[in-house]
Amino acid sequence: MTPTAAPSEHLLHFGAAVRRHREEAGMSQEQLGHRAGLHRTYIGGVERGERNVGLLNVFAIADALDVPAGELLHVTPRSP
Amino acid sequence: MTPTAAPSEHLLHFGAAVRRHREEAGMSQEQLGHRAGLHRTYIGGVERGERNVGLLNVFAIADALDVPAGELLHVTPRSP
Repeated sequence: MTPTAAPSEHLLHFGAAVRRHREEAGMSQEQLGHRAGLHRTYIGGVERGERNVGLLNVFAIADALDVPAGELLHVTPRSP
Repeated sequence: MTPTAAPSEHLLHFGAAVRRHREEAGMSQEQLGHRAGLHRTYIGGVERGERNVGLLNVFAIADALDVPAGELLHVTPRSP
């Protein structure tokens, strides 16, 4: 399996997935941060793909969004 | 959705998944580390659930194991 994406693309994809699920849940970044035990500005950085999020925060965000953590990592392979 | 597991259990589950896929692929920790661009001792710490692995390393390990990253995060909810 060829690498699915360049490193920074992984973070951008993850951030976009977090944003999509957050907006679908009608939550603000502040509300998501509060539920996940993280600061609003940290959530903003995650959504912009600026943070190499650790697993514990991946699961905290997924739990706060009420989605399986693996779903936030689902990456569509780059077209060749 | 109730939190799937206590924080450290997430790391233990992830480590067990990495080990299971590595062994299924017939790789040593050294070989996996080499393919992922990580040190053998780092892989050992990951498999023991001692490392809060960042997303970039999660994807590097998943690519090296040739499995989707989300599969390594699949957690079976704790029985109540």
